[in-house]
Amino acid sequence: VTAQADAAIRTLNETTAVAVGVRPARDVTRIVGSRRYLHGGPPFALSEITGPTRGALIGALVFEGDAADIEEATRIVDAGDVEISSCNHAGGVGAVAGIVTPSMPVVVVEDAFGSQSFAPVNEGLGKVLRYGAYDDETLRRLRWLRDVAAPILDDALDRIGGVDITAMQAEGLRRGDECHNRNIASTANLCLALAPGMLRGAADVNDAVDVLEFATGNPHFFLSFSIAAAKRIADATQVCGSPGVVTSITANGRDLAIRVSGFDDRWFRTPAPVGQPKLFEGFELADANPVCGDSGITETIGIGACALSAAPAIMQFIGGDPREASMLVDEMRELCRGESDRFLIPADGFRGTPMGIDVTKVAATGRAPLVNLGIAHREPGIGQIGAGLAWLPIEPFVDAAAALEASCLTGAVG
Amino acid sequence: VTAQADAAIRTLNETTAVAVGVRPARDVTRIVGSRRYLHGGPPFALSEITGPTRGALIGALVFEGDAADIEEATRIVDAGDVEISSCNHAGGVGAVAGIVTPSMPVVVVEDAFGSQSFAPVNEGLGKVLRYGAYDDETLRRLRWLRDVAAPILDDALDRIGGVDITAMQAEGLRRGDECHNRNIASTANLCLALAPGMLRGAADVNDAVDVLEFATGNPHFFLSFSIAAAKRIADATQVCGSPGVVTSITANGRDLAIRVSGFDDRWFRTPAPVGQPKLFEGFELADANPVCGDSGITETIGIGACALSAAPAIMQFIGGDPREASMLVDEMRELCRGESDRFLIPADGFRGTPMGIDVTKVAATGRAPLVNLGIAHREPGIGQIGAGLAWLPIEPFVDAAAALEASCLTGAVG
Repeated sequence: VTAQADAAIRTLNETTAVAVGVRPARDVTRIVGSRRYLHGGPPFALSEITGPTRGALIGALVFEGDAADIEEATRIVDAGDVEISSCNHAGGVGAVAGIVTPSMPVVVVEDAFGSQSFAPVNEGLGKVLRYGAYDDETLRRLRWLRDVAAPILDDALDRIGGVDITAMQAEGLRRGDECHNRNIASTANLCLALAPGMLRGAADVNDAVDVLEFATGNPHFFLSFSIAAAKRIADATQVCGSPGVVTSITANGRDLAIRVSGFDDRWFRTPAPVGQPKLFEGFELADANPVCGDSGITETIGIGACALSAAPAIMQFIGGDPREASMLVDEMRELCRGESDRFLIPADGFRGTPMGIDVTKVAATGRAPLVNLGIAHREPGIGQIGAGLAWLPIEPFVDAAAALEASCLTGAVG
Repeated sequence: VTAQADAAIRTLNETTAVAVGVRPARDVTRIVGSRRYLHGGPPFALSEITGPTRGALIGALVFEGDAADIEEATRIVDAGDVEISSCNHAGGVGAVAGIVTPSMPVVVVEDAFGSQSFAPVNEGLGKVLRYGAYDDETLRRLRWLRDVAAPILDDALDRIGGVDITAMQAEGLRRGDECHNRNIASTANLCLALAPGMLRGAADVNDAVDVLEFATGNPHFFLSFSIAAAKRIADATQVCGSPGVVTSITANGRDLAIRVSGFDDRWFRTPAPVGQPKLFEGFELADANPVCGDSGITETIGIGACALSAAPAIMQFIGGDPREASMLVDEMRELCRGESDRFLIPADGFRGTPMGIDVTKVAATGRAPLVNLGIAHREPGIGQIGAGLAWLPIEPFVDAAAALEASCLTGAVG
């Protein structure tokens, strides 16, 4: 079969994700409950969590009312009296720690068949739960997101009939975003699409404007929508795609793992690296937690690092020379099974982004894929300390390629 | 003197334009009045106007109430009973026909010294007055802009204390705009900056949302702000700059002309070319009017064609291969006296844009500068039929270089 006729590439090209709501997580998944939360990355035990996840869990217990205060929350985590399971198996993705509690608002996206995916609403930069912060400011913001912002955003999406996030990602590439680590122009686009729905007939116009200002002022507000949409497309590919294409790149601060079409819920794991991030002023590499979070899902659908040359301005944030971005994208082309029909890079002559990371190609070239990522402090409560480009450890790809080779699945790819 | 220490370059780098209002033109310039309007391009006689200007004048007379209907307006123009003078001498710039009447709302920008410049509010694409349309839809939209939109925008700017347009142009280059022919991401940025001021305490929230939707839906809404800001910076350079730098590139459908620092209000003219625009479907080159309008002011401050490689997506609209954009910018570097300190091109390693088109360099290389432009139909009432990149005729630059050489001014440049 030709690359474009391949079922994985076809699914990646044809699945569209529309944002339909911003709802409490308990309305979207039954896996959450009292002291039963979700986390980012592949499944792991409570005893294995690292700093950012620990901080986020402590904050989450207080936020949810499952602990009276930070002290009680800390005792609950230490006693193992909270159950955690992976977002990824619940149909969701979470940035960094990726903790999701029952009342936490999540962005809900839907494909043409009505299948849904979700991601927690992005809290902004600085001290935020997803990077392990749990101070008063963090919890106050989360409560406001739950009580004020989420209902307004949900009503707006309902009134305007949803927002096509896939189309907005494609447009983002025309506005200098790669929709993983740079989302500023797409955030503006999304905010303006939501604004009429938020404002016309608003119960309280000032509340609606507060939400609009919060969203506009958060350069990563679009990220939750972007990763939720990517999860929907990647999960469709996991179900409908031909074998051997990466459908998840995720880490929990302990392990980095990938999922691959043809292998159901199997995770191919390796210890999570720290990478060579560009650290914010005042931090050093020893402060960095190994990578954490599900946002590598963007690279599985052909954006993020696969669209780096569409977003040269990101290089100031993540390090590197913007003039090399096209070369890095070309390196990704050698590892991918196809090219996107809709994610086009203007600076590369409107060529489609590389799409569908192919474990067999990765194993054959010996070069692992590139992802964009944010870096958390290893201690709970501090937050983001850097961002960067990272070449992933190659082991999980090689393992998956070997498993594919050993299975009866290879024939389907030929 | 070094290039960066040159007074023209310093003025181009240091002048900042803040949008402070959207007001009736009569509040900003005393040159407009009953049947006394402004036009884009260098001064010319009513008997010399071409199609788009004729159409815009007819529409303007009806809009202003200076004629009862299109028939009367046509007779007034034919009889020469309307006085026109150049926007450029009134402190303004107008896109394409650039007709400005007393009640027409104009964007007002101000520099740190309180000097102002203005440009009419952009009406959107399609049938619009600036391209010579004057049908009911065009006039209805203009009245709504005057009666509903302008007061809301003016109040908003007042409430939020103005918007720094120079900073927004610099950010635009990070979001894939060159702020002349591509303004879509900057339009979103501007709309979100204005939104809180438009909405908090709005007399009628639905009117405010109508204005927000109109502005958001017009991909060139930012253009008026961009050219008004460019005019302020260019006029400051005309006053404070060392001689020999181009401070205006403009055309009226008959003549193309430039102004040059050191030469006060003198225009160096040549017949306006049609160029090789990319025409919209259904039109041919014989339909095109010679170029018209003041928006080449953007190229005089180092954006537009000088920032082409920041906006590769524009190439689909204006024709050309985005991969060549950096080369075109490099050609402009040879014609410019310096580089911008604040307009940086991410894809070119955050190098400053070429800035300060130097007539002596143009004459010496024999290659004229590049501008981006829109093309109007030669008949009144039709509108825009294309857009493109155009190498300007070199004659006015050669004439200006010769005048500079012959004058006592050259010493000041050395």
